[in-house]
Formats: sequence, structure tokens, C-alpha cells
Amino acid sequence: MSDDGGLLLGIDVGGTKIAGIAVDTRSGERRAERRVPIDGGPLELQVADVARGLMNGAGDARPAAIGIAVPGLVDTGSGVMRLAVNVEAGELAIGPLVAQELGAPCFVEHDARAAALWLLDRGEPDDSLAYLSVGTGISAAVVLGGRLVRGVTGLAGEVGHTQAVEDGPVCRCGLRGCLEMVAAGPAVARIANERLARGEPSSLQAGATGADAVYRAAGEGDALAIEIANEVGVHLARAIRGIVLLYGIDRVVIGGGMSRAGEPFLRPILDELEREQAASPLISHALTPNPVELLPPDADPGAWGAVVVARAGLRNRVPVAPEGEVADA
Amino acid sequence: MSDDGGLLLGIDVGGTKIAGIAVDTRSGERRAERRVPIDGGPLELQVADVARGLMNGAGDARPAAIGIAVPGLVDTGSGVMRLAVNVEAGELAIGPLVAQELGAPCFVEHDARAAALWLLDRGEPDDSLAYLSVGTGISAAVVLGGRLVRGVTGLAGEVGHTQAVEDGPVCRCGLRGCLEMVAAGPAVARIANERLARGEPSSLQAGATGADAVYRAAGEGDALAIEIANEVGVHLARAIRGIVLLYGIDRVVIGGGMSRAGEPFLRPILDELEREQAASPLISHALTPNPVELLPPDADPGAWGAVVVARAGLRNRVPVAPEGEVADA
Repeated sequence: MSDDGGLLLGIDVGGTKIAGIAVDTRSGERRAERRVPIDGGPLELQVADVARGLMNGAGDARPAAIGIAVPGLVDTGSGVMRLAVNVEAGELAIGPLVAQELGAPCFVEHDARAAALWLLDRGEPDDSLAYLSVGTGISAAVVLGGRLVRGVTGLAGEVGHTQAVEDGPVCRCGLRGCLEMVAAGPAVARIANERLARGEPSSLQAGATGADAVYRAAGEGDALAIEIANEVGVHLARAIRGIVLLYGIDRVVIGGGMSRAGEPFLRPILDELEREQAASPLISHALTPNPVELLPPDADPGAWGAVVVARAGLRNRVPVAPEGEVADA
Repeated sequence: MSDDGGLLLGIDVGGTKIAGIAVDTRSGERRAERRVPIDGGPLELQVADVARGLMNGAGDARPAAIGIAVPGLVDTGSGVMRLAVNVEAGELAIGPLVAQELGAPCFVEHDARAAALWLLDRGEPDDSLAYLSVGTGISAAVVLGGRLVRGVTGLAGEVGHTQAVEDGPVCRCGLRGCLEMVAAGPAVARIANERLARGEPSSLQAGATGADAVYRAAGEGDALAIEIANEVGVHLARAIRGIVLLYGIDRVVIGGGMSRAGEPFLRPILDELEREQAASPLISHALTPNPVELLPPDADPGAWGAVVVARAGLRNRVPVAPEGEVADA
């Protein structure tokens, strides 16, 4: 195995899949990529497997560092994740474990924050913005004046567990009515399947419909799918209004698994925001005419963000070393 | 009129009243106070009247500076307020107008932000917190790492116009379902009067019940008043959850006209937050055991905040000068 120190790995752990890229440190070019469904086994071993696949794909190169983007509450110093309600119920020292498995320094960051770091890194013109990830879960990362907001609790941006509706099924977090329960991928699938089971007419197949199928059908004009997409759009627009009003920012970049659906996903959000702007001078001031940008489906902000995290970790020289210790500066 | 430069005025413009204090610059002691209901005439003239009353009460002293705390969107540089949906529909150059009226430099700040500056000034132990004002309107001011968040739109903290319920009456801002429409003072009065008009049994007097009467009755055990207070508490607790999750902070200080009701106002908020903490490990981590503090009824955070703004304005030497120009540093 070569060890030219010229490779960085970025691995994004989502609710249903792990996406990874290998990037040439100097050129910044992608040399390999992998995307695998989560199989339910130990998460750290699956992440290590993806890393090995990337190293292999990049010509058996050994990485200078590995960045891992995960949901939940992340201790970036120790590389430990917890409270990731859609991925890992308990506490997992994913950084040290993957570092030990591969013998390379690992740096762990919250997935939405990693994506926001990537937006800054790629030369985002605004120094205040929110990145909103909509997939199996929903979370945000906010940048104010060029600085990422973590919050003293480390939970800044957890918009997925703010209140969206009065009741509804119990969320994995333990509450009812969370945004994730009406607007994340599993919620879209649940709502579609419930309505199909009630016999509502649709081109969708009852019983096994996923969020991606709903948005595909919405794009093809299916009335039920359009109705569901509209309801999700209203909930997400209100969450965006909340972020924009509470932080006083005027730019929101959306990514995440659900956002890959493109126009059928974005249009209902924009429609609702436009209705709000038309109804309210306050909201009209709060939102610029086009405050929302959707990342292209192949953007992989989590994986690219993890690369940025790996690079920054090396530069700051405080890696979670293979033995799990924090190296000196 | 004496001109010892030893007096600062702080004037807080609320939705229904103007509260002002005169403070000795050196000792920080209060030398006069005024509290008058808003009469519907030109706001700047009423503010100037309050200021004259304070000067008179403090022994005809001329103030070194006047701080004015107002709701809405505030341009601190020009002293202009706008979008204050509960006070002033249009745009008002309140700083320059009051300065011209009184011949003293005026500094204008958003009311909740002024209150937050006062919390910091009085030696708040936490350098990250939110101040939540609940009165005729509802708004918040957030401090992150000792710095006040204004946001690029200047609207940071406008939690009163985030979504609380699906429908409901149209808010003064133009939207429906805003937090202010279910949890601010006028909403509490409206809800109580609607339910009394439907003949629900209560010790409250139909037709002319205000929020203060509702909370007084709740404190005395009136079942309808308790039910209304509980519903308001649930909405405010959810808004606090939103602030706490989005900013990752764990301390919220509450003030404003409604909060003067004390325990009958606070208890339902704490009860709902405790229910959320019990149900959700995520919320349990997000909220320390006692994240919410209620200011005492006589705290006057807006007026004291305006004094802090006046003092800071003098120190920074960028007053809105009497002629409306910004003086050189």
C-alpha cells in the first residue's frame, strides 16, 4: 500500500446509506467514490469497509486523514457521536474506532455542519447562511459572520425536532409533532402508504412506496403525490421561516437525500414562501426574493464536507489519533 | 435646567405603554421613573413627554444621552424603526425626532436586544442565552459567546411570527398561526373573551377581560383561566424548545408585560418543558434541569436596557445627533 499522504477520505453516514469519496489532497480532485446501504451491523466496521473500498479505488493509497460526517450530537474532540435518533441509539466512539481499524487519523463532525463547512470552503459569497439537510432526518447548520454555530449544548440547528404539528405519531426522539415526523423521508413514505391503504387513487404502488417514488410520481402529475409534496413543502417552508426569523439570515441552502428529487421537492417550498412574502411585509423583508438554493442531486455535501473536516483536522493537528488520544498541536 | 452630564434616560416603548427611568451615570442609581399608557398620538412626542417627565423627576437635570428601546426592525445607526406590527405600521425616525425635540443625543435599539444587553451588563454568568419578551408582542434576543445576534436582516429573534398553530386569526404581520396570535397578551384576552362569550363557567368577567385578569384568576384557581394559561404555556414552551434547539443554548430569561403575572404564567411553561424532557433524551440534553428564569415583575428590562444602550452609545461616540446626523468617532 502506497503512503504518499496525498489522499483524504470523506465519509458521510446518513440514515439509510453511507457515501464516501477519496480526494487528492493537492488537486482536490475526486479519485474514488462509494455509496452503500447501511446493513444494520456495527456502524464503525461498515464505515471502515467504505474507507477500504475508497483506498482500493484510489489505487491502494493510504489516506492522510479521514473525515466522518454523522448525525446527532457530536463531540468533535473525542470523535464520539450520540443521540443520533435515526442511526445509533446509544453512544459510539466512531472516530477512535475507525482510526484504530484503519491506522489513520479520523476527524468527526456533525453532517449538516460538515456540509456547511464545505459551502464556505467552496467560496460561498454570503458569510451568513443556513444549510438544511432533508433526508432520513432533518437538521440544519448555521453560519453567522463566517463562523459555524455549534451552541453550548452542541445541538445548534436541530430543527428536525421542533414542533411542526399539534399531534401525530411519536418521533424517534420521544416527542410528538416533530418536523421530522411530517417532512423527512420516512414520514413521506408513511403518509403515502397510509393514504394508499385508505384507497386513495394514485399511480403509486400501495405498501412499498418510498419518498423518492412519491416525488417521481409528483413530477409525473400524480394528484395524491402532488398533494403530499405540497404538504411537506408547507412544513419545510415554515421551518425555513423559523430559521430565517430566529437567526436573521436570508439564505438557506438545501441538500440531503430527499432534496435529490429536485423540482417536485423544491417547488412546494418556494410556493409557500412566496405566499408568506405576499401576505406579510415582515416576511417579505426577512426573505430575499430567492432565499433558497437547492444543491444538485450529485453534490454529496456530507462527503465533501467530511473531506473539508479531514483537511482542517490535519491542519489544526488535533486528530483523534489511532490510539484514540488527542495529539498535541 | 442643570447640565451636569450625570443623567442617562432609558425609555422602553411597548405595545400598550411607555416605561422610562432616569439613572445617575456615575452611581447607576435610579433617580426617576415614569410609566404611561400609549395614547395613540405621535409616538415620538409621547416618548419626548416621558423623557421630560423623567428629567423633571430627576431635578430638572439634562440627560447626557437617551436610550430608546422599540419593537420591530431597528436601524441602530439611523435611529429609525419599522415593521413594528404592534406599535407603528410605517417607518418612524424615532431617534432623530426625539433628539431634535429634546436637544440630547438619542440611541435606539430593539427592545429585546436592549434587555439582553442589560442582562449582560448586570453580570450574567452565561455568555450564551436568550431573552424572551412576552407582552403585547413576542420577540427574543440571543447572545452567543457574549455577542448579540442581529442577523443580516436585522430581524434575528423574531420568534413571535414563527408558526405555532395550523390556522387561527390573521396576525398583524399578515400571516396566520403566528405564536403571537396564541400566546401574546392580546391573544390571551381574545381567547378568554371568546370562551366566556360561549358561556363557559368562570369567575372572569365576560367582554372586558385582559391577560392580567386571566392570570390573576388562574392564580386563584379559576378552571377556565388555568386551562387558557396551560395552553399558552404549551405554545411558549414549544417556542422555547425551538430557540434552544436552533441555537444550541440552554438558558432562557423571560420578561415582558405578560411575564409580570409570575408563577401562574411560568408554571405551565415549566410543566410542558419537564414533560418534553421526560419524553425525550434529546430534549433532556438540550435543556438543563432549570433552563428558564423569569425576571421579577419590577425588573423593567427594556428601560434598563435602554439605559445600557444610551451609555454604550456615548462611549462609542456615534450618537444620532440632534440634527439627525451621525457624529464622528
